[in-house]
Amino acid sequence: MSVITLTTDFGSGSPYVAAMKGVILSLNPAATLIDISHEVPAQDIRCAAVVLDEVSDRFPGGTVHVAVVDPGVGTERALVFARIGRQNYVAPDNGLLSRLARRTPPAKIVRLTEHDYWLQPVSATFHGRDIMAPVAARLSLGLDPDHLGVPLERLVMLDWPEVRLGPGRIEGSVLLVDSFGNLVTDLGAEVLPGFPGAAQARVFCRGHLVTGLSRTYGDSAPGSLIALVGSSGRLELALVGGSAAAAIQASAGDRVMVTWPEI
Amino acid sequence: MSVITLTTDFGSGSPYVAAMKGVILSLNPAATLIDISHEVPAQDIRCAAVVLDEVSDRFPGGTVHVAVVDPGVGTERALVFARIGRQNYVAPDNGLLSRLARRTPPAKIVRLTEHDYWLQPVSATFHGRDIMAPVAARLSLGLDPDHLGVPLERLVMLDWPEVRLGPGRIEGSVLLVDSFGNLVTDLGAEVLPGFPGAAQARVFCRGHLVTGLSRTYGDSAPGSLIALVGSSGRLELALVGGSAAAAIQASAGDRVMVTWPEI
Amino acid sequence: MSVITLTTDFGSGSPYVAAMKGVILSLNPAATLIDISHEVPAQDIRCAAVVLDEVSDRFPGGTVHVAVVDPGVGTERALVFARIGRQNYVAPDNGLLSRLARRTPPAKIVRLTEHDYWLQPVSATFHGRDIMAPVAARLSLGLDPDHLGVPLERLVMLDWPEVRLGPGRIEGSVLLVDSFGNLVTDLGAEVLPGFPGAAQARVFCRGHLVTGLSRTYGDSAPGSLIALVGSSGRLELALVGGSAAAAIQASAGDRVMVTWPEI
Repeated sequence: MSVITLTTDFGSGSPYVAAMKGVILSLNPAATLIDISHEVPAQDIRCAAVVLDEVSDRFPGGTVHVAVVDPGVGTERALVFARIGRQNYVAPDNGLLSRLARRTPPAKIVRLTEHDYWLQPVSATFHGRDIMAPVAARLSLGLDPDHLGVPLERLVMLDWPEVRLGPGRIEGSVLLVDSFGNLVTDLGAEVLPGFPGAAQARVFCRGHLVTGLSRTYGDSAPGSLIALVGSSGRLELALVGGSAAAAIQASAGDRVMVTWPEI
Repeated sequence: MSVITLTTDFGSGSPYVAAMKGVILSLNPAATLIDISHEVPAQDIRCAAVVLDEVSDRFPGGTVHVAVVDPGVGTERALVFARIGRQNYVAPDNGLLSRLARRTPPAKIVRLTEHDYWLQPVSATFHGRDIMAPVAARLSLGLDPDHLGVPLERLVMLDWPEVRLGPGRIEGSVLLVDSFGNLVTDLGAEVLPGFPGAAQARVFCRGHLVTGLSRTYGDSAPGSLIALVGSSGRLELALVGGSAAAAIQASAGDRVMVTWPEI
Repeated sequence: MSVITLTTDFGSGSPYVAAMKGVILSLNPAATLIDISHEVPAQDIRCAAVVLDEVSDRFPGGTVHVAVVDPGVGTERALVFARIGRQNYVAPDNGLLSRLARRTPPAKIVRLTEHDYWLQPVSATFHGRDIMAPVAARLSLGLDPDHLGVPLERLVMLDWPEVRLGPGRIEGSVLLVDSFGNLVTDLGAEVLPGFPGAAQARVFCRGHLVTGLSRTYGDSAPGSLIALVGSSGRLELALVGGSAAAAIQASAGDRVMVTWPEI
C-alpha cells in the first residue's frame, strides 16, 4: 500500500508539482500518486484545510497526504507529520491540518527535524520538493514516523467559526465554493430539521431566502436557488443549472442561518 | 489489467474527483487511474459524449470508463454499465454513451440496482462517488457485470445531427472545439473528396469559405483559416497559430458544408 | 522502472492527452504516467524547453519524457529520441530539448524513422499520439533506441540569451513566469554575490529596482517586490503575497541586471 496524495496552491500544470512527483518516484518508484487539488487559491490555507477535511478520509488507510500551501516557507514555521484517524499527513504546521484535527485529535504529531531524510541542499523556498516529498516517499516505504524528528503536543489551530444552535434556529458559515458554484456550509445534516419538517425550513444567506430543503438538484427548475444536504453530508446552497456563488455573490466565510418552526 | 478512466464536468482540481479516486483505491489499490477530462463544461452531456467517443477506444481492452456528467443525479434517471466494443462504461443513462452506441451497438447493458456494490449511505447528489466509483473498482477486480443489476435493452439516445450526402456536396456539424480552438466536425475522411480533388473542395462554416483541404497546419501561413482531416480522421477547421473558434465565432452544433466539382 | 512523463501545450483536461495515455497503456499497461504540464502556452517551444530543463532531472534515471509542442507537425521537421544525462526524451526536433542540450550534450540522438514502432495509420496532425506515444511505450519496455531510426549528430538549438558577466555586474533574462507570478531568471546562484554582500546587491527589471537579496518570501512584508535565489537555484523576482509579473508587467525574455559594490 503506497498511495501518496498532493494538495497544493501551485496551479494545475505547474512544473513544481511535477518536480515533487519526480522526487517521490526517485525514492519509491512503486508509489501511486494522486492529485487532490492544485487549484487551491494562492496561499489560501483555510481552503486547503477544508479540502483535506472533505476528501482525505476517502483514501485507503495508511495513505500519505502531502499538503503544500506554505506562505511561510523558509521562516520559523514548523513542518510536521501527523497521523489523524487512519491517514498520514505531511504539511507545514500553519493550520492546514486544523479542520481535520478539530474533528479527530491527532494520534501522533512529529516535527520534521531529521535532515537525513531530506534532499540536500534544501532550498529556502521549496520545502515541498526538498523536505515534504522525500519524507512522504520514505513513509510510503515504511519508515517509522518517529524517526522524522521530535514529538509535538499539538498542531497550530486556526480559528474556525462555530456553529450556533438555538431552538428552531442554527447559524453557520460557507466553508467552500465548489467548481459548480455550490456553497458548501459547515451545517451538518445532524443539526438540520429532518423531512418532512424540512419543507418549512427557511435558509438565509447574503440577504437571500430559500424556503424548504430539496433532496437533489434535478427536483427543481433551472435557475432556482435551492438548499439541500450535499454529498459532504452538510447543507449546501445551489443554483439549479448555474452558480449560486455568482448569483448571490457569496464566498467562503459568509454566514448562513436556518430557521424552522418548532414541532 | 485494471485501468479506470474518469470523465467529469467537475473541473480540474476538483476535490470531488479526488474523492472518487480515494473510493476506487480503497477497493482496488492496484487500479491505474487516468483522467480523460474534468473540463467538460458543466452539465454538457453532448460534449462529454463526443469526448468519450473520440478517446476511449484508445485504451486497453477491458478498461472501465466512468463518466459523470449528471444533472439528473438523485432523480429517476438510471445508472448503467455498458460494454461497447472492447471497452466498459459506467455512467448515468442520459445520453452520455449515445455517440459511442450509435457507432457500435452495446454488447451488454445493465441497469445498476444492486446496492450491495455501492457505498452506504448513498448521498442524493454524488452518485459518482457513492455508486459509480465503487462499481468501477469492483469491475476492475473482475466482478461479473451481470451481478450489478438488471439487463436493459437499450440506452437513452440523444438526437445527433445527421450527415447529409449529395452529389458533390456533404453537410455536417461541428462536434467539438478543442483546446486550440480547432473545430472538429462529424464529417469523416471517407465522405470527403480525396486528393488531388481535395484541392478544389470548398468548405463553408459561419459564412466563411475555405478553398482546398490542407494536409497539416504547418503547410500554411500563420493566420490562415484552413480545413484538413484532423487526428480523429474527420474534417477540422483550424486557424494556423490561432483559434478558428474565436476567429469565426463558431461552436459545437454549427453547420459545416463541403462542396466540390464532380470529376 | 517505467516512468513516462508528458509535457504538452494541449491544455489541462484535453482529451488529446488522454488519447496518448491510452496508446501508451495499451502497449505497456505497467507504465507509470506523470503529467509534467499541459499548460504550456500554445506552440510556445521556449517555455516547454525551460520547463523540461527545470524538472526532468528530478525523475528516476531512465524515465522517458515525451514532449509535444509541435507547430510543425506533419512537415519536414524531425522527431527524435535523445538521451541527456540519465534521462530519455522523445520530442520534435524543434528546439524543445535545446535548453537541456545546452547544459549537457546529449549522449545519443536518434531520428525516428522506423515506422514499425508507430501506430498505423499515422495522422498528419497528431504525431504525439501516433508516433511519440508508442515509441515511448516501447522504450519503457526496454527497446534499444538504436532500433528507432538513424543517428543524428546534433539537435536543433534555439538561440538562448547569454548571461553577461562583468565586474560587480551581471545581466540575464527572465526565463519563466511561474503560476505565482514569480519571475524565474537564468542567473544562477553561483554568479550572484554571496551573503552578506548580497544585502547591497541592486536588481533591475522593467525599470524597477530591488535592493538586497532576500532569503525567502516570508521575510518581507506582503506587497514587497523582492529578489531571491529560488528553488531552481537561480535568481527570482517575487511579489510577497502577489504576482511580480503582474505588478511590474514582466514576462519571459525581459532583461534583468544585478549590480553590487566590489568588495
